[in-house]
Amino acid sequence: MDEKKITVKSPANIAFIKYWGQKDEKEIIPYNDSFSMNLSHCFTMVTVELQEDAVIQELYIKDYKSTVFERSTGESLKRVIDFYSKVRSLLDAKAVFGFRIYSENSFPKKAGIASSASFFSGLTRAFLKGFGMELPERQISILARLSGSGSACRSIPDGFCWWKKGKNSATSYAETIAPPDFWALRDIVLILSSREKTVSSQEGHRYAKTSPFFFPRLKGIARRTESIRRAFFRKDLEEFGAILEQETISLHTVMMTQSPPLYYWSGKTIETIKKIVQFRKKGIPHYFTIDAGENIHIICEKKDEKRIAEYYKNQPEVEEILINYPVVGSRILS
Amino acid sequence: MDEKKITVKSPANIAFIKYWGQKDEKEIIPYNDSFSMNLSHCFTMVTVELQEDAVIQELYIKDYKSTVFERSTGESLKRVIDFYSKVRSLLDAKAVFGFRIYSENSFPKKAGIASSASFFSGLTRAFLKGFGMELPERQISILARLSGSGSACRSIPDGFCWWKKGKNSATSYAETIAPPDFWALRDIVLILSSREKTVSSQEGHRYAKTSPFFFPRLKGIARRTESIRRAFFRKDLEEFGAILEQETISLHTVMMTQSPPLYYWSGKTIETIKKIVQFRKKGIPHYFTIDAGENIHIICEKKDEKRIAEYYKNQPEVEEILINYPVVGSRILS
Repeated sequence: MDEKKITVKSPANIAFIKYWGQKDEKEIIPYNDSFSMNLSHCFTMVTVELQEDAVIQELYIKDYKSTVFERSTGESLKRVIDFYSKVRSLLDAKAVFGFRIYSENSFPKKAGIASSASFFSGLTRAFLKGFGMELPERQISILARLSGSGSACRSIPDGFCWWKKGKNSATSYAETIAPPDFWALRDIVLILSSREKTVSSQEGHRYAKTSPFFFPRLKGIARRTESIRRAFFRKDLEEFGAILEQETISLHTVMMTQSPPLYYWSGKTIETIKKIVQFRKKGIPHYFTIDAGENIHIICEKKDEKRIAEYYKNQPEVEEILINYPVVGSRILS
Repeated sequence: MDEKKITVKSPANIAFIKYWGQKDEKEIIPYNDSFSMNLSHCFTMVTVELQEDAVIQELYIKDYKSTVFERSTGESLKRVIDFYSKVRSLLDAKAVFGFRIYSENSFPKKAGIASSASFFSGLTRAFLKGFGMELPERQISILARLSGSGSACRSIPDGFCWWKKGKNSATSYAETIAPPDFWALRDIVLILSSREKTVSSQEGHRYAKTSPFFFPRLKGIARRTESIRRAFFRKDLEEFGAILEQETISLHTVMMTQSPPLYYWSGKTIETIKKIVQFRKKGIPHYFTIDAGENIHIICEKKDEKRIAEYYKNQPEVEEILINYPVVGSRILS
């Protein structure tokens, strides 16, 4: 049996305009465009050992700060197997291979830092290589979207990425709107707790529409996508940050008003939001955004990074901080 | 100079359907009906010493757990003086009197327990008596509404009160929809902190409409008022409680999405919400509601009061609890 090993480094991404709710659950078509930045220090190393014509299908995960890979079964493994079948079928690939997947996160998973995006974007590239296929970036982004972790499509292209909702599977993909060095933004992740969330984003998406604020939110997003794009290209952090925070609160209000309600925030989240609003008054521009989890991402410019990091890492609510700059997308290393 | 002394005991009320946003700021006409219960153990004792033909206008406040009355000036006094003038003008009263007002709360003020409602409803009755006027309850409720603390109108009638938004000042008042003994509900107030909120409800109302979710919320309220009324008269606590919590989250999401955003919740608030959702799973029906502040009101039935009180008073987030049953409205004691 031939065996080959593929290693992919794939970043998580932080969304400035969020993806929440699926117009087409099967094809993972979102209701709205979203906009994100790839993160330098929150990434997943995905190593796939392939065995041609074999049936082995195994998944090993090394958690953040753990020293060993542990075998994963159940739902996580099932998603990987389903994705393998889907990729194979979509590519109309003749080859069959077994796999052992090793996934290693540089950050806590399931805590609102898009760990499934980094993992599945990496796995997309690895499977593609496994099948011996090369595709244009757009097609790879579409495949990553179909993994089920929709936002994985934003971890394929470089730097600052825009996911066009599209009209169907072929037109719903992410692409770079500015390279990593366009704007020296920082995402300082405040880890308030590394406990895993109890409701997955996948599950949450399904009930997004039950919120009476879901469709009103979409109207707001239509305005925000235009204005945040303008603020971004002007590098107007104040305007950018104001939209960022509106977007975050809008997302979480939808979550909290879904049936069943989703309270991703913890007490530390709301206390930290208040601290950010206060500390900003000292004239240091920095803004919060929060994904589907309790941890907070602070967006600021490189010039203010040190003062902001210093202040927040000393807050009792903050377990640790991770500082990210914009980087390229998912890459095959070997 | 003749001097007379009037003492009024006036309850705070907890709203099941909340009042937020004014259709007419000057006349304090709300956008929606609201629905509340008068609280037995959260009340204000308002004593007014009147001096005929005198110009003295003084306000003394004894805070919760304080032992002395302190003289109050500034905004609080100004509101009282304005209200005196308004009542006098609306009643077309010929008399003029000076006043020394003593206000004493049985609960922390400005912490989301409607302290201005209990105070101004009490003051309404005291001023009316001062002017020697007797009015139908409906007219008194209208006057209390015009104090500026709109929800004061709900502390005038007895028991469970419905504030009809009305079309103008003459049609916007509260009335009893069920007497205090109709349903043995309890409001267990969890005092998470007795610090005063930094933004008053009055201020917050003004910006309610800036939330993109304000008008969508009104649509939800239209549905909720009907269904909570039915659940109330059926004494269906499960249905009642579900609507209560939807209403609360809807209110606070509007607040958080106003410009400027209002974060009344503290970390303890969200942690306690989560505890309630968990503890309820043990089969003890109880539901939360939160006014414009960080503290939490737990609504339950008398039969479960002890177990619920016992559990929450031992939580580290909870400073103390206040247990309320439904009572009559504002009453002149002497």
